[in-house]
Formats: sequence, C-alpha cells, structure tokens
Amino acid sequence: MSEIRKDPIVNRWIIIATDRKNRPNDFSVYEENEDLKYCPFCEGNEKMTTPEITAVRKPDSAPNSAGWDLRVIPNKFPALRVENELKKSKTGIYESISATGAHELIIESPDHKKDLGQFSEEKIHSILTNIKNRISDLRNDIRLQHIIVFKNVGPKAGATLKHPHFQLIAMPVIPKRAMETLTGAHDYFKIHKKCVFCDIIRQETEVGARIVDSNNEFLSFCPYASRFPFETWIIPKNHAADFDCGEETHLRYLSRIMKNTLNKLHKALRDFQYNLLIHTSPLQSDFSESFHWHIEIFPRIVKTAGFEWGTGFFINSTPPEEAAKFLREI
Amino acid sequence: MSEIRKDPIVNRWIIIATDRKNRPNDFSVYEENEDLKYCPFCEGNEKMTTPEITAVRKPDSAPNSAGWDLRVIPNKFPALRVENELKKSKTGIYESISATGAHELIIESPDHKKDLGQFSEEKIHSILTNIKNRISDLRNDIRLQHIIVFKNVGPKAGATLKHPHFQLIAMPVIPKRAMETLTGAHDYFKIHKKCVFCDIIRQETEVGARIVDSNNEFLSFCPYASRFPFETWIIPKNHAADFDCGEETHLRYLSRIMKNTLNKLHKALRDFQYNLLIHTSPLQSDFSESFHWHIEIFPRIVKTAGFEWGTGFFINSTPPEEAAKFLREI
Repeated sequence: MSEIRKDPIVNRWIIIATDRKNRPNDFSVYEENEDLKYCPFCEGNEKMTTPEITAVRKPDSAPNSAGWDLRVIPNKFPALRVENELKKSKTGIYESISATGAHELIIESPDHKKDLGQFSEEKIHSILTNIKNRISDLRNDIRLQHIIVFKNVGPKAGATLKHPHFQLIAMPVIPKRAMETLTGAHDYFKIHKKCVFCDIIRQETEVGARIVDSNNEFLSFCPYASRFPFETWIIPKNHAADFDCGEETHLRYLSRIMKNTLNKLHKALRDFQYNLLIHTSPLQSDFSESFHWHIEIFPRIVKTAGFEWGTGFFINSTPPEEAAKFLREI
Repeated sequence: MSEIRKDPIVNRWIIIATDRKNRPNDFSVYEENEDLKYCPFCEGNEKMTTPEITAVRKPDSAPNSAGWDLRVIPNKFPALRVENELKKSKTGIYESISATGAHELIIESPDHKKDLGQFSEEKIHSILTNIKNRISDLRNDIRLQHIIVFKNVGPKAGATLKHPHFQLIAMPVIPKRAMETLTGAHDYFKIHKKCVFCDIIRQETEVGARIVDSNNEFLSFCPYASRFPFETWIIPKNHAADFDCGEETHLRYLSRIMKNTLNKLHKALRDFQYNLLIHTSPLQSDFSESFHWHIEIFPRIVKTAGFEWGTGFFINSTPPEEAAKFLREI
C-alpha cells in the first residue's frame, strides 16, 4: 500500500507509491496516442477508464458510454485512495500516514487535440463549474485537508497523456508549498491587517507594467518575483479564499480571462507547454481573511529542477515586466 | 542590471536578470558541442572563456593557455557579480537587493566526455579540493551569506554544456530551501539537543534497508522521504557543518564514495542524467551544532516540476528501499 511520508528535517510530505514495482527503466513515457482508438480519454473508449464519477452527457446517453461532453473519473493509478483508512505510524524518527485521499481526472472534452484556451468561453465555463462541484462534494469528507487542481500540458510539463484533462488531488495533509503560502499570507495579515494578495493587486494595478489582461472580476499578471520566464497568475480582484465559493457569473469572467491569457501565451511562445495550478484555501482550516485563491501558470520553456528543488533559488532571465508587455501587446 | 527580488508572500529570493534581453524563443538549448573546437571548456580554447581564477597546471604552462588539468573561471554570463555594490531597495510592498555575489565554474578536466564517476579517485579528490579552496576563499567577502555548489549533467538536468563542470554560486541572501533545512534542523536541535542528520545516520545504519554504500567516513543512502526515484544522499558520518572544514583524508573518503555511488547509479539507470548539490552551512551565521553538510543527487528520470514547484508535493513511485537494494546489489 502507498503511504505518505514526512521528511524529518523540513516536514515535507511525500507520497511513496509502495504498491507499484517500477524497475529503473520502467518510467512513464509521453504517449502521443495519435492512434485515437488507443486513447482512453477519447469517445468510444469509455471502457478503458475507471467508471465515471460524474459527466456532462446528452440526455439519452448511458454512463460510461459515448455521448458525453465532459467526464470525471477516478485516476486508474491513484496516488491516494478514499477507501484507505486514515492511519498514522511512527518508526524511530520517521512518521507516515496512510495514502488516504482522492485522485480524480476531469476529461475536458471528447476532442483529443484542443488545448483549454482553444475551447469556447461557454465550454471553459462548464469545465470550471465541474471542477467547482467536485471540490464542493469532496468537502464532505472531513479526513481531507487540502485540494489541488492542476493540469500538465505537453511532455515537458510532465504530461503522460495528450488528451486534455485536469487532475484533482485531495489529500489528508496540507502540502509544503501550500503551507508556506498560507503561513506567509497569515503573517502578513497579522502585521498589516490586510490580505497580501489584495495588496499585490492594488500595487500591480497602480504600476501596470506587469499586467497581462484584466476584466471586471479578474486580473492576469506576471508576478514581481516570477520564478520562470512568462510565469503568469490569474487572480480574482475581490477577496475570496475559496475557488468554489463564487457566483456563476464569477466563473464566466474567469473563463474569459483564462481563454485570453492562454491564447496570448500560445502566440508568444513557439512551443507552449505548461503547468496550470488552482490554489484554493484548505478545507478544514480557516484562512478566509488572509488567503486569496489564485491560478498559477508556468510555461515550461527553460529546463530547471534539481538545482531549484534543492535550493529554492531561481534565476529568471526574462523580467516579468518584459514578459507582460509582450503578452499585453498580442 | 540584474537584481534579487523577494516574493512578498513566501519571502523567496529570485534572481531577475534584467540586463539580458531574452525574446520568448531565445532560450538556451543544450549544445552537444561534438565539434570540440567549439567547446569553450576544451583544451586549446581557453581564450573563449573569461580569464581563470585558479587552475591546476603543468609547471611550465601559462594561465589561460593549454596545459591544465582543472580550471576555475567566472561564469561568462553571471547571475551575480562581485563588482556590484550591495544595495537594498523597496517599492511599495516589493523589496529587492542588487545582484552581488559570485558565479564561478569549475572545469573538471580537459576531457570533454567523462562524467565525474569515471574519473580516478585521485582526480575527484583534486576537484573536491579545488571546490573546498574556492569556498574558503569566498568566506573572506563578508557580504556573502551562502554558497551553493552543484552540477547539472545532461539536458534533462538543465545542463547547457556537456563538458563536465561544477558551478558555484555565492549569494548575499540565504535561499529559501536552504533556510528551511537550516530552520528545520535548528528546531529539531532545540527539542532533542541532537543533530537531526546524526539521528538519520544512526537510524539508517540500524535499519540498513536504504543504505547504498558506506566507508570509514561517509554514508550514501536513499532518504526515507525521497522526492524522486533513486534520489541519493552522501553524508559524513561524523558531525560537521561545513564542507570546507575537513581533513585531506576526509575528502579522499568522499572521493571514493562519490565515485562508487555515481557508478552504481550509472549502471542502474539506462540514461543517468542528474543534478548533484553540495549543501554546506551558511557563511555568516552559526549553525555548527544543528546543521550537517551533505550532498544530494537527483537522477532526472521522471518529468516533474510545475506541479511540484507549485505544491511542494511529490509522488515517488519507487520506494527508496527498493532503489537502495537495487544500487547496493550492483
């Protein structure tokens, strides 16, 4: 059985998949799946996946058959499982907990090739609404502390399947980077009695140089201390800690700015492979005043990693002001 | 001029190279340099690099000419420069400091193709001794807070030049991951009155399952909460905070275990590309009781990054016990 292990020095949680017996050369390879009859996420291949949790379907279609616009399924090779009882154990200085949680996939569309930004605003809205509903549903399991929703696009971004999909991981601990952001924002709130993200929005709006796009409810911008060239954030202008708390129109504004921002990045970068992460507040702890939900987009242009993982030190050779100007002018 | 910017939420420092004007498609590409006359690190091409800081040379050879065994040079495109005066500035909520520091390259050998593990123990010892001397020398600049020594091997590891070399970055701040490790180890010391790394060595030695190799003075092992398949650490068995404080024989034992460990990884993994990092104590702060210097090796087998960067959450499908067993038995 898999387990979640705690690093004894920095208290970082890691999932160790002890039930998979990978040999050294047995690691996943990006599968272009150009022969669509072998893509498990294409229409007609529903039997190749685990049974769907929910779907957007034509009225007369049966679950796990053709006739759908969107499917949500449990990951066939989940890192975490809801069936696992939550148990802690300790051996000497090492601590672990059982791999309890959820690992779901949101298959965005039967279309094998389209990227998120190429869908209509209406379609993006439907995808975001389904993500929102999954988060709201998983809130009912009080063992779950935190949810991360993300997508990896392209082999450079760690994708193993091309067919467009989001992943959702719900876990019984708060991961390290999330905790850092929560703690940093909470510390700022204690000192300034204000949300640091709201202050960032205020200063970015005044300065203007790092803004990519803006509408009534959302801002997209390249952050001041961008780790990567063309790193871009999308954030609601009004304070909100939870992704799944907004009104229906709220997600319509988000759909519009996501489409515009992704399309600008597609046009700016010849080979736009990326990670997109939705950061929402933890499920069981109250960070409603100090945390502000937001989306991070990391274009995978430069090869980095071991060094950055090891040090937390990033060298970014494209100032965010230049990246934002380039994107604004597209 | 480049600057070091602080993320206002998590207080992470990032170097923004504002003096480089990269266009979106203008990012560095791995250069195999199979035509050795164009490799700046090959013998005979000394004029293609910045003038050397130090070198191991044949007695009758002149600096910056042929006849060397090892060269240390400043990076031609340094992220940080010693000439830069240390200045802080603040604009609203954003803080930055000037990019003061050093960025040096240690060209390990005139041999273009050999990896570190393929050199003799004597040669590895000479490389490590030169690294040690550079750290000791840079300690004299009291503006410098921290030194990281690392190497990226192969394009997957972010290398842009094949010719074997280490990089050394000395900076006026302590990077985030280093600070986390220092803080975590310091907290452990406050509670247990013991070094957490010493406790890890004790438990790993008792358990045995995660040990890769061992000699009189060093242990190599796959850590309990390994982030990556075949992640391997090398650590001195006796407590020491600084890499550059050991005896001459100490580095001989290190050379031997580095050679063995790298060669085991080379044999285990068909395509062993990796990052290797030497973590030593900060220069101007006293962590001598709680911190313990060590080396991290990250084989770049799986594609990860945006997700892991964004969350600090890693899924490792090869338990360290299996990786270590595989390596031990080679």
